[in-house]
Amino acid sequence: MKILVPDSDKKRIIIVGGGFGGLALADKLCNGIFQVVLIDRHNYHQFQPLLYQVASAGLEPSAISFPFRKNFRKKKEFYFRMTEVTKINSDKHSIETPIGSLDYDYLVIAAGTTTNFFGNEVIKKVALPMKSVEEAINLRNTLLINLEKALDSHDSQKRRSLLNIVIVGGGATGVEIAGALSEMKRYILPEDYPDLKDEEMNIYLIEGSDRLLAVMSEEASAHALRFLTDMGITVILNKHAIDYRDGNVILSDGESLLTNTLIWVSGVIAERFDNISPELMGHGGRLLVNEFNQLQGYRDIFAIGDICLQTEATYPKGHPQVAPVAIQQGELLAENLKRMEQGELLKPFMYKDKGTLATVGRNKAVADIKKIRLQGFLAWAVWLLVHLRSILGVKNKLMVLFNWIWNYVMYDQSVRFIFRSNPKH
Amino acid sequence: MKILVPDSDKKRIIIVGGGFGGLALADKLCNGIFQVVLIDRHNYHQFQPLLYQVASAGLEPSAISFPFRKNFRKKKEFYFRMTEVTKINSDKHSIETPIGSLDYDYLVIAAGTTTNFFGNEVIKKVALPMKSVEEAINLRNTLLINLEKALDSHDSQKRRSLLNIVIVGGGATGVEIAGALSEMKRYILPEDYPDLKDEEMNIYLIEGSDRLLAVMSEEASAHALRFLTDMGITVILNKHAIDYRDGNVILSDGESLLTNTLIWVSGVIAERFDNISPELMGHGGRLLVNEFNQLQGYRDIFAIGDICLQTEATYPKGHPQVAPVAIQQGELLAENLKRMEQGELLKPFMYKDKGTLATVGRNKAVADIKKIRLQGFLAWAVWLLVHLRSILGVKNKLMVLFNWIWNYVMYDQSVRFIFRSNPKH
Repeated sequence: MKILVPDSDKKRIIIVGGGFGGLALADKLCNGIFQVVLIDRHNYHQFQPLLYQVASAGLEPSAISFPFRKNFRKKKEFYFRMTEVTKINSDKHSIETPIGSLDYDYLVIAAGTTTNFFGNEVIKKVALPMKSVEEAINLRNTLLINLEKALDSHDSQKRRSLLNIVIVGGGATGVEIAGALSEMKRYILPEDYPDLKDEEMNIYLIEGSDRLLAVMSEEASAHALRFLTDMGITVILNKHAIDYRDGNVILSDGESLLTNTLIWVSGVIAERFDNISPELMGHGGRLLVNEFNQLQGYRDIFAIGDICLQTEATYPKGHPQVAPVAIQQGELLAENLKRMEQGELLKPFMYKDKGTLATVGRNKAVADIKKIRLQGFLAWAVWLLVHLRSILGVKNKLMVLFNWIWNYVMYDQSVRFIFRSNPKH
Repeated sequence: MKILVPDSDKKRIIIVGGGFGGLALADKLCNGIFQVVLIDRHNYHQFQPLLYQVASAGLEPSAISFPFRKNFRKKKEFYFRMTEVTKINSDKHSIETPIGSLDYDYLVIAAGTTTNFFGNEVIKKVALPMKSVEEAINLRNTLLINLEKALDSHDSQKRRSLLNIVIVGGGATGVEIAGALSEMKRYILPEDYPDLKDEEMNIYLIEGSDRLLAVMSEEASAHALRFLTDMGITVILNKHAIDYRDGNVILSDGESLLTNTLIWVSGVIAERFDNISPELMGHGGRLLVNEFNQLQGYRDIFAIGDICLQTEATYPKGHPQVAPVAIQQGELLAENLKRMEQGELLKPFMYKDKGTLATVGRNKAVADIKKIRLQGFLAWAVWLLVHLRSILGVKNKLMVLFNWIWNYVMYDQSVRFIFRSNPKH
């Protein structure tokens, strides 16, 4: 069965995934010489850098989400389908999904990555990942439910396990969620849960390497560590979480941490598709592409963003898996696809690194911008501006800005609702 | 096992349900001569009159919800517990919940009503109710998923069933959701789903009696009917939905309507508790109370709001099940409980009816205010003001106002996201 997309005299490009890369590509391709089909398992683009604020009840999920159909209104020859690509038949130039198959002239894989549990099924079962808006909502629900349960547990052991939070992974996401939760503990807990003693709640941040924010400068790592320690987070370096037993997270040195809430942001692995041979995959399952983002050995299949592994002189091991790389690759690929059609030479990708930012809390952030190192209020202000600028849509910008001002002035992460939801049909 | 609430030298009042009535009562009782324990199955108060705007993607769920703990911050001797009362032991003066039992000096039942499927299990299984924020989110998700599915159904029969919407119940909620969905069909469908022909989507509103908005004036009913008909809604009066078979809603005269989306807002029935004898229940399971809202035959058990049935000269059959009655009963009961403690005479309840409003769409509403009948833009403006005034919390007021202005100017119900969510633990 075929997916219902009308045939066209234009060549068809299928883009798999509407993250930063896929969206940048589609935006540039639309109303051009191609028919564009975007496939995503959600009906909206999610602004991942702010997921942690949804999880910590600072922002509405809708504030960091943008419906694809709204974004591509009025675009001719554009088609969105909410489904998943299960299989790529490169010989037949077609993809397969639960709602049918579809032929392509060009295929762009921009499906990104998923949480890496390193094959640990126990941890996969209990841990709370934070890669999607829905996972962030689940985390928010779980955190709030645990607080309510803690109030009613007669057993102090159980209460501590409901209140303790263990975050595994000291990258930007881990640092940011740790900071947000420590502020929740400091500003919300005493107000909303006066019956809970805050010494019963401990927040741990576990990082396997010897520093936080490994992709950033030593200075940034040091400042982030100091900020978090000052905020009451117990940061544990050089240890891995290897198991979860009897309600405890077990660390590589045997230490065990009692908790009901294991937040897992310790690594990612590329999304997988059938029929893509392992030789085409590098570290973390990333698809090996050339300087034009062409999948090795293919002329009509491309991969961009977190899912691809592309090397250049300054990045011999590949680019960092961050939004700017994906966006720049998407924009260049749009140009290159047009060049291919006009038989022109393709431009090789070169990443322009504008810098790296991570925020820890109120007035606390770290920034590496070229050779400049910022921390504290200034870095925090830069972080706010950069993120506000990047959020899709005027309404979302206003909503986020309004919520940020509100939360900042009121010391209040105000979206503390337990909303469960599952469509009936 | 006892619920963990500290003993106090003050008398304990347990309030079951944090709707309009329970909240008004608790607000007036706090920091007074009682210990107040509020029990609700959600951790937030929901502003039910705007549920239909959440279901139709016009408002964020968080904009019409307010966390109890935030509302009662700094209140002394106030305790909230997120659980459900399963049983009332009037002889032992205690209630039972899944997290334990609790003794009371006074018990106030403000648990409201739930959707009435009139014992029809088939309909209960397929129908989508709209009595809670979570049900509204489910309805939104279902509506959006059906649109996506419709795009990919090769079979026109299936496509029509995914697009058709049948709303059962011509009260305010039915009229309001019908209007909102017709605007979604008119303004959103052609923009976001150009591939769907809008003649394939039909919205039906089924009402068993001979007019819509039965609680309002004949004029209001007539105008609502005209508004909806002009907006393309097929209004069917004097018929009941009696069954759902092979994807069709079956009406009392045998007519069948093909649909995958059956919205059920046709009636309510009082929430039930074990150990409350049937003699204490009137029409719709409502608890019979005297003029002081005392449950018949009890001195220390009260019922307020939709769940109670109280008669007065002007309301021989009981009050309408609307927010103002609940709020006024809650406020009076707070006074009366203090009077009881001081051995003073209790004041009987007399409902001050400020009028009834229902909105149908942009600039379209009906209002009965005392003897005055308004419709169209003026009624709509009044509706906006009244509801904005009643929403709890400055932030929510601003959020709702902002969203209303945005949606009005942009002709856009902009919260079109499919967010599924279920806490892991």
